[in-house]
Amino acid sequence: MKKSPLENSRCIEVCFTPKLYSEIQTKDGYIVVLVDILRATTSICAAFENGVKNILPVATLEEAKSMKDQGFLVASEQDGKKLDFADFGNSAFNFSAESIGGKTLVYCTTNGTRALDLAKKSDKIAIGAFINLTALTNWLIDQDRNVVILCSGWKNKFCLEDTIFAGALTEKLLVTKQFSTSCDSAAAAVDLWSLARPDILGYIEKAAHRHRLKKLGLDDVIPYSFAIDSTRVVPVYMKGEIVDEQKVD
Amino acid sequence: MKKSPLENSRCIEVCFTPKLYSEIQTKDGYIVVLVDILRATTSICAAFENGVKNILPVATLEEAKSMKDQGFLVASEQDGKKLDFADFGNSAFNFSAESIGGKTLVYCTTNGTRALDLAKKSDKIAIGAFINLTALTNWLIDQDRNVVILCSGWKNKFCLEDTIFAGALTEKLLVTKQFSTSCDSAAAAVDLWSLARPDILGYIEKAAHRHRLKKLGLDDVIPYSFAIDSTRVVPVYMKGEIVDEQKVD
Repeated sequence: MKKSPLENSRCIEVCFTPKLYSEIQTKDGYIVVLVDILRATTSICAAFENGVKNILPVATLEEAKSMKDQGFLVASEQDGKKLDFADFGNSAFNFSAESIGGKTLVYCTTNGTRALDLAKKSDKIAIGAFINLTALTNWLIDQDRNVVILCSGWKNKFCLEDTIFAGALTEKLLVTKQFSTSCDSAAAAVDLWSLARPDILGYIEKAAHRHRLKKLGLDDVIPYSFAIDSTRVVPVYMKGEIVDEQKVD
Repeated sequence: MKKSPLENSRCIEVCFTPKLYSEIQTKDGYIVVLVDILRATTSICAAFENGVKNILPVATLEEAKSMKDQGFLVASEQDGKKLDFADFGNSAFNFSAESIGGKTLVYCTTNGTRALDLAKKSDKIAIGAFINLTALTNWLIDQDRNVVILCSGWKNKFCLEDTIFAGALTEKLLVTKQFSTSCDSAAAAVDLWSLARPDILGYIEKAAHRHRLKKLGLDDVIPYSFAIDSTRVVPVYMKGEIVDEQKVD
């Protein structure tokens, strides 16, 4: 149900890295869409697609280790590599239905959790990825809130893969005529998405992180990460846990 | 004279806002190109084109006022508007040959000076604008240094006009084969420039700051600011003052 009858009444703002989050102009009533295409937010969507019950994000290795000692399944990585004590790294392919179906997963990542922590002051935090793009768009339309798209970036720097997702989502929200934007980052993201869309995997060859993953032998997940709409889940963070908002509804 | 015979031996990094400057990966031996197209760096180039002897940048209003009391010509603005005590605002059109020819100008701006202050640890700081694009490119090629392009942005946020300049400069340096980049911000800037180039003034209509200037009645300088290569000056900051490096040579 649309709660907002006015056209263009809600604003979209794009934040290229967590370091710029303190500068956002949107003051009240916004949902943060957290984006870390390679790989935390894609992997979180994959985990829900494969039936994880809920995900408990933690910001530090110490917390992750402590939760492991308490008997939880734990995903933890540093610079893309699985840490020894953990059950999983953060590849979307780790989270099979057999390993996580119906279970609680503790999730600690270099980039994603830090951004999640930053965004806690917003009304809600949704998890965005190409694999849930349309489901997320429809959910956002129903929320009657402004939208801030927070890209995780790489070590606080701008990254292309998160930005083209921000552009894709911005474009899908703008065509509804219920949103508008006067944010240069959003305009740039839409323009970069227009260049990437005809051949996303070709375009992303120029992204620095794509090559970092290749060096680490962790790039098998690339085609999956850019396959639009392979899932209908909308993971949302609230009260310390991430749950699938589609199931809650 | 080219001091660097190796192909692709120098790197280019683009920093979208001063807030991200602390995250740059380029460690040693770099020149910072400071960019504030609307308007500080365009205006500084215009002042040198019209014969200013040198420019003393100051970071605070207090310093600017004190220099005015000492008899200097002072340019000072806040949010684009000239301050009462000052001789000039920061419009490029203020700096006519009659008003500044052969004189020293004290320059205080909201954005530009703050960025200049940040970049003081680099080897040299050059002033970049569309109006000196080719002269700056040629000077950078001769310097045998890495290049960090530091966009002033708007209140620490990303802005389109500085970014497309960063893309234009990056592209001109890359074609020499003496530079390379693995910076996603540089790749994005080049891509945005490819979209802007066929109709720069049309493209910049989507920039938020272009509309801010319109509201303030300060947008008369827009066509001048995007007129490529109207001057051959290369203003460079060293030892507390900005001088035209072309004249020094």
